Amino acid sequence: MEITREYLQTVVNKCKPFSANGSVKQYIPGLDNSNQNDLGITVITLDGQTVSAGETDLVFTLQSVSKTISLMVALQDFGKEAVFQKVGMEPTDDFFNSIANLETYQQHKPYNPFINSGAIAVASMINGNNYLERFERILELVRKITNNPSVSLNKDVLEAEKRNGARNRSLAYYMESTGALDKDRVEDALELYFRINSINVTTHDLAKLGCFFANEGVSPHTGEKHIDGRHIRTIKALMMTSGMYNESGEFTVEAGIPAKSGICGSIMAAVPGKMGIGIIGPGINKKGNSLAGGKMLKLLSQDLQLNMFHKEIHKDR
Amino acid sequence: MEITREYLQTVVNKCKPFSANGSVKQYIPGLDNSNQNDLGITVITLDGQTVSAGETDLVFTLQSVSKTISLMVALQDFGKEAVFQKVGMEPTDDFFNSIANLETYQQHKPYNPFINSGAIAVASMINGNNYLERFERILELVRKITNNPSVSLNKDVLEAEKRNGARNRSLAYYMESTGALDKDRVEDALELYFRINSINVTTHDLAKLGCFFANEGVSPHTGEKHIDGRHIRTIKALMMTSGMYNESGEFTVEAGIPAKSGICGSIMAAVPGKMGIGIIGPGINKKGNSLAGGKMLKLLSQDLQLNMFHKEIHKDR
Amino acid sequence: MEITREYLQTVVNKCKPFSANGSVKQYIPGLDNSNQNDLGITVITLDGQTVSAGETDLVFTLQSVSKTISLMVALQDFGKEAVFQKVGMEPTDDFFNSIANLETYQQHKPYNPFINSGAIAVASMINGNNYLERFERILELVRKITNNPSVSLNKDVLEAEKRNGARNRSLAYYMESTGALDKDRVEDALELYFRINSINVTTHDLAKLGCFFANEGVSPHTGEKHIDGRHIRTIKALMMTSGMYNESGEFTVEAGIPAKSGICGSIMAAVPGKMGIGIIGPGINKKGNSLAGGKMLKLLSQDLQLNMFHKEIHKDR
Amino acid sequence: MEITREYLQTVVNKCKPFSANGSVKQYIPGLDNSNQNDLGITVITLDGQTVSAGETDLVFTLQSVSKTISLMVALQDFGKEAVFQKVGMEPTDDFFNSIANLETYQQHKPYNPFINSGAIAVASMINGNNYLERFERILELVRKITNNPSVSLNKDVLEAEKRNGARNRSLAYYMESTGALDKDRVEDALELYFRINSINVTTHDLAKLGCFFANEGVSPHTGEKHIDGRHIRTIKALMMTSGMYNESGEFTVEAGIPAKSGICGSIMAAVPGKMGIGIIGPGINKKGNSLAGGKMLKLLSQDLQLNMFHKEIHKDR
Repeated sequence: MEITREYLQTVVNKCKPFSANGSVKQYIPGLDNSNQNDLGITVITLDGQTVSAGETDLVFTLQSVSKTISLMVALQDFGKEAVFQKVGMEPTDDFFNSIANLETYQQHKPYNPFINSGAIAVASMINGNNYLERFERILELVRKITNNPSVSLNKDVLEAEKRNGARNRSLAYYMESTGALDKDRVEDALELYFRINSINVTTHDLAKLGCFFANEGVSPHTGEKHIDGRHIRTIKALMMTSGMYNESGEFTVEAGIPAKSGICGSIMAAVPGKMGIGIIGPGINKKGNSLAGGKMLKLLSQDLQLNMFHKEIHKDR
Repeated sequence: MEITREYLQTVVNKCKPFSANGSVKQYIPGLDNSNQNDLGITVITLDGQTVSAGETDLVFTLQSVSKTISLMVALQDFGKEAVFQKVGMEPTDDFFNSIANLETYQQHKPYNPFINSGAIAVASMINGNNYLERFERILELVRKITNNPSVSLNKDVLEAEKRNGARNRSLAYYMESTGALDKDRVEDALELYFRINSINVTTHDLAKLGCFFANEGVSPHTGEKHIDGRHIRTIKALMMTSGMYNESGEFTVEAGIPAKSGICGSIMAAVPGKMGIGIIGPGINKKGNSLAGGKMLKLLSQDLQLNMFHKEIHKDR
Repeated sequence: MEITREYLQTVVNKCKPFSANGSVKQYIPGLDNSNQNDLGITVITLDGQTVSAGETDLVFTLQSVSKTISLMVALQDFGKEAVFQKVGMEPTDDFFNSIANLETYQQHKPYNPFINSGAIAVASMINGNNYLERFERILELVRKITNNPSVSLNKDVLEAEKRNGARNRSLAYYMESTGALDKDRVEDALELYFRINSINVTTHDLAKLGCFFANEGVSPHTGEKHIDGRHIRTIKALMMTSGMYNESGEFTVEAGIPAKSGICGSIMAAVPGKMGIGIIGPGINKKGNSLAGGKMLKLLSQDLQLNMFHKEIHKDR
Repeated sequence: MEITREYLQTVVNKCKPFSANGSVKQYIPGLDNSNQNDLGITVITLDGQTVSAGETDLVFTLQSVSKTISLMVALQDFGKEAVFQKVGMEPTDDFFNSIANLETYQQHKPYNPFINSGAIAVASMINGNNYLERFERILELVRKITNNPSVSLNKDVLEAEKRNGARNRSLAYYMESTGALDKDRVEDALELYFRINSINVTTHDLAKLGCFFANEGVSPHTGEKHIDGRHIRTIKALMMTSGMYNESGEFTVEAGIPAKSGICGSIMAAVPGKMGIGIIGPGINKKGNSLAGGKMLKLLSQDLQLNMFHKEIHKDR
């Protein structure tokens, strides 16, 4: 399958108008209303092509895409069973920052690792003596996977995250009160959570991440195996059912590709065995997903037959 | 890939003990405590093998597996856009018969077509002059797909469904009160819903259904195309995110196969491009899924590499 | 204390403008938009005065004011303990027709007898061979208390109640499904509930009812004792905490008088030891209470020192 | 009306056995399992009697009884309208430390000032340059009302409150996130909230507080008027509908007296125009109310005809 720059540019052009109905998350430094109609995409295939179109020089922060990385590290540290004793595997119909269900259903663990409460619980588990050590481990892994040693912390965004972190604090303290979070890990988990949200990346970095998931945890540029393939499949399955917040069901129907979105308007998608996709489009809808970016993913899926529920893909080889 | 009867019998033997922790849905005639440890499976591959093991002569009713059929007919009658104006595409963390979310989130349509409220809403749409005509259309389709003209209504179960239908009535009237269900369709939709739940089938019939979904809507035994492939992909995607009720997330992680369960302890699974699987195991857990049956599906997925998130499956052909 | 017609007319004039922000419940025959600004009041004191002002010739139906009557009969039939095993005593923050809490908190009895679910549960208890007999008992009691033998059923309203009864049906069937309502009493309870809602009254009748509650269950015009005073105190206490739906807290603060409102815009209030008040003002707010009527009650309470939390009232005699 | 020590001792003896089914809040220093069956009561009438029985030398902390004091100060500082723009007046069916409704109903203010979220919101309003100044104002008022200059802060309890304050922190940060609490007041409000919960008192002090409410804000021992009577009536009304958490409905029916409970097993009750009552009985039920203490209040109400819904009390003087 060949993907040309011209084709990608057509996709960008077709989808750009959908940004108009969105809004840009204002509290995060680096993005403002002038970015609402930005749209960029990078595709990296497992067989070595890299193709980009649109505003691919935009630098933005990982935000919720980081939830896949922290889960990966926790799975590596403790294994599937231990991690999923702390956090569930089920999609939720609530918003990503919801607190009600933690109380209403006397559910003393968050529904899944891709909502805020779940990601904070995961952050509280990661090995390391303090949040600085834990953060270094995560940052190093992101640098290796993206093959980009210049990936780094955005301190302005970190400050903003902390200043605007009331909802996340509320989630963390609620979990302390029910025993879902260890008392002495609360502030540390929040600090780590804010930091991994604040790592600067580009669509190229996201596409590399997607590739890594598509290639079962083996770095496509070095061939190095960083993570056990079973953990990677677990994460892709969760991206399918919960990666796009409470819009995941629609994305599974319309695109059929495991993907994880971030509040900056980013999407990192992994087409198993085929390619990684990195998208930025800061105009987001009420559910927190990039409007034009989501449209691009659905269009690519149709045009390139990437929908995993398509029979042809699964034909016996 | 060859699947032998011996292998399937091993799977049945390994998984049978898991039934012990379950319970049998008592209100449905034909199943009682004596069935708790029954376990049967039929696999039909797209290339023509049919293999069975365990109690495959058990006759049971479609129950919630029928939700895939009624959705199929509604999609054929009205198209995707119209159907999903009446019912959502999102997985829910609530139980299959939940009513709270219809009120709490002022969500005037059910979350998805595979929870009871959603299936009743779908049943209310299907073309036909009355519930008898509508039911005949569905029954005929099931007979064609299973290539089994003797598939028929179980009147005892229908009576039991109606006698024990208070929760479903409550859901239907609630939806009338918010306008999600047309006033003059309420009783008709309930009658149809109870009927399609009460169609007698075997694991062989479920495996045929699974095959049909795996083969993109083309009958694998006659080559006849009954339904547009796009609708079949939509249904498989919904089976992945919502087919196993509020345990769908775990099944996506552990099995990675689109599947739909029924309260009798049945599972119908469709491995795209490969096979259909029909399972019965009446010992169900609190979320309504067959304990031993679910275990079998997960084991098959591992042993036969059926997990859709596995890279190998997607290698370029 | 003397209450003059001139004073009451002033109150009506002052409060009338508040109706403008309300709306008239349209599905009930007999009331339409032309009634939005109607406002009428009758006060009957225990020492024999009857004073009226405004549109007191308006005939309307009991609606939720009837919830006090059915509770009274159930208390008489079975005693406090038995009744409150079926229905709670607690105020709720939900709307009067809410269903969510019946599920969310696995609360298998309605919060209190003055929300719809609770009143249906109470209606299901009342002694009698069928809904006609039960209804006759209630109608007779209303006639006795109001000393008005012409009080009767409004058949047009009854038809409308049944035609628009989907939410109440949903509540009743939900309660059947959890065992809160006996299976064979559901339709009968609904029929009775719709009927007692559909009894025609005037502000004069409501004031008589209020008097009866104010006078501890002794008819103020005949001296006949119809109900045990303890039951009357129980009902007044519930009127205080739950009589004005989820606006009861504010009414307790602002008026401090036990009162029960109806969706027609009626209010029946009972000032213990002093007087009964009947109000009609069809312009209601979102919580279901008469806007101008509520204002009148608060004003009367201030002007006439009727607030039960006032120290002076409780001075040793 | 005369209340003898003998009579009160009988009440204590009758009610003591009810403590057996309760439990003692363990995280608060000063109370442990040895206190489960303690029971003490002090009654102070407006005409000057002081009568006590049982363990009236027990020193315990104000806990939620303090919610009446902070509301009083806020009402004095800003008036009714301003205060109730920040916090509601409605009783809630949820537990006192619930967070779900703040999200579910997009209710950006707490239901009432007597649940934890509401009391924290009230604490955030009180005038003063910092929490120390604010606390001093409240402590001074308590000393004046109780005429007990030795009332003071229990530092051990304060430390325990802060150490175990996760749920309250969660509530406060949630309110910050929705704008219900000012960003720069969160930690200060929590600190103040924990402090006013940690003021040492006895049943005698609580009875004095009750007297003050019963006497419309005039100190019964000095005749000094501390607070506007209208505010006192507002607080008594809220005590009636919400003072005993989500058991307030039952208390209104069974006792009919405005009362406020604390998690230590204390109750402060105010019978308008008559008396104040202070109770301690550390064995509490699941709703947070003293089991034996609640029983005492109900029994006193019956024996002494204190139920406010009783007709006799309201007879024209």
